[in-house]
Amino acid sequence: MKFCSNCGTAVDLRVPPGDTLPRHVCPACGSIHYLNPKMVVGALPEWEGRILLCRRAIEPRHGYWTLPAGFMENCETTAQAAARETLEEACARIEIGELYTLFDIPHISQVHIIYRARLLDVDFGPGEESLEVALFDEADIPWGDIAFRSVEQTLKHYYEDRRRGRWQFHVGTIPPPSGHSSPR
Amino acid sequence: MKFCSNCGTAVDLRVPPGDTLPRHVCPACGSIHYLNPKMVVGALPEWEGRILLCRRAIEPRHGYWTLPAGFMENCETTAQAAARETLEEACARIEIGELYTLFDIPHISQVHIIYRARLLDVDFGPGEESLEVALFDEADIPWGDIAFRSVEQTLKHYYEDRRRGRWQFHVGTIPPPSGHSSPR
Ligand SMILES: [Zn+2]
Ligand SMILES: [Zn+2]
Repeated sequence: MKFCSNCGTAVDLRVPPGDTLPRHVCPACGSIHYLNPKMVVGALPEWEGRILLCRRAIEPRHGYWTLPAGFMENCETTAQAAARETLEEACARIEIGELYTLFDIPHISQVHIIYRARLLDVDFGPGEESLEVALFDEADIPWGDIAFRSVEQTLKHYYEDRRRGRWQFHVGTIPPPSGHSSPR
Repeated sequence: MKFCSNCGTAVDLRVPPGDTLPRHVCPACGSIHYLNPKMVVGALPEWEGRILLCRRAIEPRHGYWTLPAGFMENCETTAQAAARETLEEACARIEIGELYTLFDIPHISQVHIIYRARLLDVDFGPGEESLEVALFDEADIPWGDIAFRSVEQTLKHYYEDRRRGRWQFHVGTIPPPSGHSSPR
């Protein structure tokens, strides 16, 4: 942020009175502009034991596979965001199930959450942000080509929980990648 | 948002190519400015069966009681945010436990999450945003003077779960209030 979004004046970076961190403060209108983490919300859609994945047509991680997920919008719930992203990226309709995973990713100021979901039919296909969309059995999951670590860990939890027959909510933190420059 | 935070030019509100919603778009530098929901993160600190609450010294809901909670900052985890807010508002040190509740509040574009926590000592007191801080037994909880419905529902879940001896993660949605103008 370089300019005040309220009045267009160049902002200063300084600690406001009573605060502890430097903020973008407008010297003209006095607005304090806070930066907050963003939520990425997605779904893990199941169909007869198989999982729906999308191959990304956009950066970051073009060409890699992901669960349908994206930035939450204002005025929607997390469940609505998960269903909307699934419709946009995979043209697929789902019934939202349990909230399944939450990952803190502090080095990119994001929180990722994924819902379990049931695919309502198999009439799906790639949306504008996907190259292809497909259902995978566990043996066919492209583990080396998963776009994001939050998705990879969600899939691992899914197969572990399924094997032992007990489903639970999982919380984790994704540390900065070593030797990677693209956000995963 | 009225002006581009990147170059200071007045923004337009229009639907970018390939998008579905109107966004603040800069006619000069082409930046698209998205608005995203904010996360409010808090803790439910326990001490020998009692719960720590703070009475708010700031708006909204000045004078009402709340669990320590506030806007998550960039570059921190949700657990770090909960501990930081507890230190700032109640000068209290906690050990973070399980993630306990998540509430969607779409009419104010917020997601509230609360961790269970264990107070490490009783050396607490009001921070700058609190009038007073105290430990409450269930019988003394000021149910009519709780600041936010996400906090009220978290406390109700807590006592229900404690009574039946089974703790679980709770997800819910807070609808718009009827007849209230202040954000709850
Ligand atoms: Zn300004
Ligand atoms: Zn601009």
